[in-house]
Amino acid sequence: MSSYNAAPLAKLAEQFERLPGIGNKTAQRLAYYVLKMPRERAVEFSQAIMSAHDSIHYCKECCNLTDKEKCSVCENSRRDHSTICVVEDPRDVMAVERTQEYNGVYHVLHGAMSPLNGIGPEQLTIKELLARIQNSKVNEVIMATNPTIEGETTSMYISKLLKPLGIKVTRLAYGIPVGGDLEYADEVTLLRALEGRSEM
Amino acid sequence: MSSYNAAPLAKLAEQFERLPGIGNKTAQRLAYYVLKMPRERAVEFSQAIMSAHDSIHYCKECCNLTDKEKCSVCENSRRDHSTICVVEDPRDVMAVERTQEYNGVYHVLHGAMSPLNGIGPEQLTIKELLARIQNSKVNEVIMATNPTIEGETTSMYISKLLKPLGIKVTRLAYGIPVGGDLEYADEVTLLRALEGRSEM
Repeated sequence: MSSYNAAPLAKLAEQFERLPGIGNKTAQRLAYYVLKMPRERAVEFSQAIMSAHDSIHYCKECCNLTDKEKCSVCENSRRDHSTICVVEDPRDVMAVERTQEYNGVYHVLHGAMSPLNGIGPEQLTIKELLARIQNSKVNEVIMATNPTIEGETTSMYISKLLKPLGIKVTRLAYGIPVGGDLEYADEVTLLRALEGRSEM
Repeated sequence: MSSYNAAPLAKLAEQFERLPGIGNKTAQRLAYYVLKMPRERAVEFSQAIMSAHDSIHYCKECCNLTDKEKCSVCENSRRDHSTICVVEDPRDVMAVERTQEYNGVYHVLHGAMSPLNGIGPEQLTIKELLARIQNSKVNEVIMATNPTIEGETTSMYISKLLKPLGIKVTRLAYGIPVGGDLEYADEVTLLRALEGRSEM
């Protein structure tokens, strides 16, 4: 992008372009937008990046992201600490929290097994999950990985590790999404919905 | 967004959400992405914001953005300094530069007249354009504002100021875009294309 008239502007646009889903044009638009911000807002933005980067780490219980020693869910004594919902990503925790129905705790794997991409069990926080289960009373582990091959593989792997320990392992139900249209449901989803049918 | 587990993360997502065209979900995705960056890349990103903000200002000739005293176009003695292309925005300079055909210099207005939004001639760099024309030999001013009501109004206003000074004022041709489809051209564009037809 030699057509930028100023190197710092080109650099800023380049930074935006490195973000996922942001193309050349959008990066350019964002860079100009940041330039036009009042200085104090630019300072805020710039500092938010470093402050998030420097203060956030894994919760020592569930490996979710937190800026404290333990995350707010693990810290909360009114949550049911004997039920663990295993998810791939911190965003999945947010998704489950939004249902406002789940009262257990979480375990964040930070990914799913994907041998082709060199992600095995060691790259995930499975070790930490096992340690946690051995150190505290856990009744049920709910597998809530993504309904993808990687997510499935991960769930299977973990459930094989946990069952010998006498722990109840469940997984989220598959089925047609609420508000969805049968016509647009793919075959696999529909098949799973059929298999999982319940009496009315 | 109380479902964020860590305040610095929520703050970073909020910063992204303030950018134009970035919604809640994308902001969240970007914030997590920044968290996962190696620290030195986060530093780079954070610094790029402040460095662009602090080092970039208007070129003292053409009001384009630059980190030097004059922008690279104005600095270039091989460009034709007697032809000025007047544009609304620094990005428009980049667009014209990409044609690799224009050899004159620019003048960036930083907006267009829009009385409804309180933008009059004083908010634009029209004063600077006039001063420039009075202080140096200018043969032609090419109006390249956007083909909108605001852009048109601005062009008209400026051309009325310049004509008494004996300066040739031209404007970009209107017409159907190359590679476009007649069927999808709007009536006004088609009318302008007809009016501007040339012999083959």
